[in-house]
Amino acid sequence: MNVKKLIDILEKRGFFYQTAEIYGGISGFFDLGPLGVLLKNNIIKIFKEVFVDEFPYKIYEIEASLFAPSNVLKASGHLERFYDPIIECEKCKSIFRADHLIEEELNMNVEGISLEKMDEIIKKNNLKCKCGGNFSQTKEFKLLFKSFVGAKNDEIYLRPETAQHIFVNFLNVYNSMRAKLPFGILQIGKSFRNEISPRQFLIRLREFSQAEIEFFFNPNYEFSEIDFVLKEKIPIYKREEQRKNSNIVEKISIEELIEEKIIPNKLFGLFLLKEIEFYRIIGIEEDKIRFRHLLEEETPFYSKSNVDLEIKFDFGWKEVVGNAYRTDYDLKQHSKYSNKEIFVVENGKKFVPHVIEPSFGIERTIYAVLQNSFIENGRGWSYFLFKPKIAPIKVAIFPLVNKDGLAEIAEKIFKDLKKEFECIIEFKDSIGKRYARADEIGIPFCITCDYQTLEDSTVTIRDIATAKQKRLAINELKESLKKLI
Amino acid sequence: MNVKKLIDILEKRGFFYQTAEIYGGISGFFDLGPLGVLLKNNIIKIFKEVFVDEFPYKIYEIEASLFAPSNVLKASGHLERFYDPIIECEKCKSIFRADHLIEEELNMNVEGISLEKMDEIIKKNNLKCKCGGNFSQTKEFKLLFKSFVGAKNDEIYLRPETAQHIFVNFLNVYNSMRAKLPFGILQIGKSFRNEISPRQFLIRLREFSQAEIEFFFNPNYEFSEIDFVLKEKIPIYKREEQRKNSNIVEKISIEELIEEKIIPNKLFGLFLLKEIEFYRIIGIEEDKIRFRHLLEEETPFYSKSNVDLEIKFDFGWKEVVGNAYRTDYDLKQHSKYSNKEIFVVENGKKFVPHVIEPSFGIERTIYAVLQNSFIENGRGWSYFLFKPKIAPIKVAIFPLVNKDGLAEIAEKIFKDLKKEFECIIEFKDSIGKRYARADEIGIPFCITCDYQTLEDSTVTIRDIATAKQKRLAINELKESLKKLI
Repeated sequence: MNVKKLIDILEKRGFFYQTAEIYGGISGFFDLGPLGVLLKNNIIKIFKEVFVDEFPYKIYEIEASLFAPSNVLKASGHLERFYDPIIECEKCKSIFRADHLIEEELNMNVEGISLEKMDEIIKKNNLKCKCGGNFSQTKEFKLLFKSFVGAKNDEIYLRPETAQHIFVNFLNVYNSMRAKLPFGILQIGKSFRNEISPRQFLIRLREFSQAEIEFFFNPNYEFSEIDFVLKEKIPIYKREEQRKNSNIVEKISIEELIEEKIIPNKLFGLFLLKEIEFYRIIGIEEDKIRFRHLLEEETPFYSKSNVDLEIKFDFGWKEVVGNAYRTDYDLKQHSKYSNKEIFVVENGKKFVPHVIEPSFGIERTIYAVLQNSFIENGRGWSYFLFKPKIAPIKVAIFPLVNKDGLAEIAEKIFKDLKKEFECIIEFKDSIGKRYARADEIGIPFCITCDYQTLEDSTVTIRDIATAKQKRLAINELKESLKKLI
Repeated sequence: MNVKKLIDILEKRGFFYQTAEIYGGISGFFDLGPLGVLLKNNIIKIFKEVFVDEFPYKIYEIEASLFAPSNVLKASGHLERFYDPIIECEKCKSIFRADHLIEEELNMNVEGISLEKMDEIIKKNNLKCKCGGNFSQTKEFKLLFKSFVGAKNDEIYLRPETAQHIFVNFLNVYNSMRAKLPFGILQIGKSFRNEISPRQFLIRLREFSQAEIEFFFNPNYEFSEIDFVLKEKIPIYKREEQRKNSNIVEKISIEELIEEKIIPNKLFGLFLLKEIEFYRIIGIEEDKIRFRHLLEEETPFYSKSNVDLEIKFDFGWKEVVGNAYRTDYDLKQHSKYSNKEIFVVENGKKFVPHVIEPSFGIERTIYAVLQNSFIENGRGWSYFLFKPKIAPIKVAIFPLVNKDGLAEIAEKIFKDLKKEFECIIEFKDSIGKRYARADEIGIPFCITCDYQTLEDSTVTIRDIATAKQKRLAINELKESLKKLI
């Protein structure tokens, strides 16, 4: 796939713009254009259908501040441990991520190793900058965006994930909503990481959107309501296959995954199944999805299980959802650092709830949809074959010519349909050109008023998937479109 | 009204929480709890119905980055001019806003006057700190939140308003959407101001949400499509009444307001009318709304007209929407600072579009709704009388007792209704207590299954506004509720 062409269409047609583009842009930041906003909203609507409305347990949504005071991030460990290893070329002063450099130059996985160890590898393999210069020692580069608040200039940080504000609010939600375990808290919103080298368009951003659910439960809870998940199979990329550098993905049942201790319980399995369902609805087929069991060295010390949902992009497989069994680590940390007791009582027994967290990257999800819907030069031009439910614009209305009253009829149809669906109307250029333009932004249905319309009040409706037209009566349009979308 | 009681209910029942409350909170930041999220989403949905779906001109929505590089804010003037005047007590080191101090102590309006002038007033009137200490000279306190990005630590700022990213994206939207003047660009999202003394709960926040429309038009455009606005009247608080310290508000037609040069054109009038419509739908009656024509000294130098929509709060009238005729100032500034030509061509003539901007404070809007819906001790307890359309939870379902199969029937109704509406089901405590709890969060309809339900499959439905019950067949519930909501 020609990714440059894809991105070109996305920018030219109103999906994304570079932030402050007229000033040269800033690396790692993008703005959503009108079509991007519509696409994102459609995807989030479906996300909430799958993970809130149709989820078998109660999920509460909150919207916390984007800022976090330093004690929150002290408790979470971000203040101390959230950094990337960087090196500087002593000659040209360029700055690189040491881990990426080693991975790319030596094809080694250096996840979780110390800065000293990286220095050793760089020295031993005599890695040098492209300019020929030697590298400095590896240093920590903090990923938190720091700012200052109030007259006393107190340090404050932009949140690096939405999760911490959920933990901090656990008792608030639990008490104010009279919630009962098991239940989840969802947050959808921006997070911020000061990446040293943002790249791959929407993949590694400095400002990005997450949807995170922290699901709280009694570790002894049986989850007998969801026994149906046990026999379901999911595609899993096991540790041994990763170590062998093989690409073999096995379809394994949730029951077996629990037995093999790859996942901790049925609830974790339910999330993985729901994720496949969600991505299927928005247009990612199951053969483009795998669950990677993270290697020991990639698994955070507080996590008892980490499984990433990866999607196949043009450049390879990439994490889009992280699933983690965070146990009672976070609530205990915040209890310790805030000096507030955090616990629940069930049948007279006090305990700290355990947590399973699926964490979705929204921009990665959008980009996965875009890449997987993109048909390059499919019919002399490129287009997006979106599921109608997520297409930003559902219907385009064209008068064949702008005379003999056809434009007026088209206007009338447009005014009527736009109450129900996102619609556009276009008068300029040949029908062929207008079809191509509508295809290019993935409009599933194009309606054309032609001379027959004047005779029998029918129009043609063209489906982007087949490029075939059929005739429909104008007064049946709305109902037919509702069914199709 | 007992505002403390109101805020207490909002925090206890899941509308708002203090950010990082378990760590003592941070002043000027709030988190939305589950009910706050639902309320906000309902309000924004109605906002989009009024200002996008039913607006007579096209409005595009974008979602830009929350960060702005320094040149954007250099062009907008924020980098230089966006500060508050502060003074420090030389004895106790407390810091105050000089303008607020003068306003409160001397009841003087000091909008727009210089720092030196403020020093003079403070000295002349011998203003002192409560501790008896003298004040320092008045200084600038910058309101932008600054941060640093990338390996070179480039300065970057959190946006103080959503408007600038709209101006910067004007050409992107214009070109990518094949837009035609007149049209608007909407952005809904967070903005940030490092207020020295955040206060009044949701009124003066450091992190807050805005909905801003920048509407672009040819200054010679006639707007003949909206002649109907001319005869409509709105409540206006004129400059002369403000200067007299009178509270007289006149109902004046848009036509007269244009003649008196209080507003520049019909479009400006259309926005003011739509604002009244929007606030009426979400529950603010017209007698709680006035439009204040800003005084000359309050009007920014680039604006040709500024009219605030003010709502009556418990503590007095407060700006909730700012309307400004920003002319071509912003586009010209960004053109100048970015060295990019920004213009459109109509009938062979190049020109820079003019801009009218309504800017809505979302939290202030929410707070206005909450204050104006709050019935203190109305029936032995306090409750919110929301319009059903914006109520966070629409229906509560109660079995009268938890035996004889009533709980099961209630569960069945709950499962059926929650597909359509936000619902809760409650089993604990007496019906009276459950009604009171439902009232307290403004649930418009309570459904109770009682012994008659077992006989004839009817339930009682109780309307919060009247506290009266009537019986309805279970199979008619969904349709009846749809009509009521």
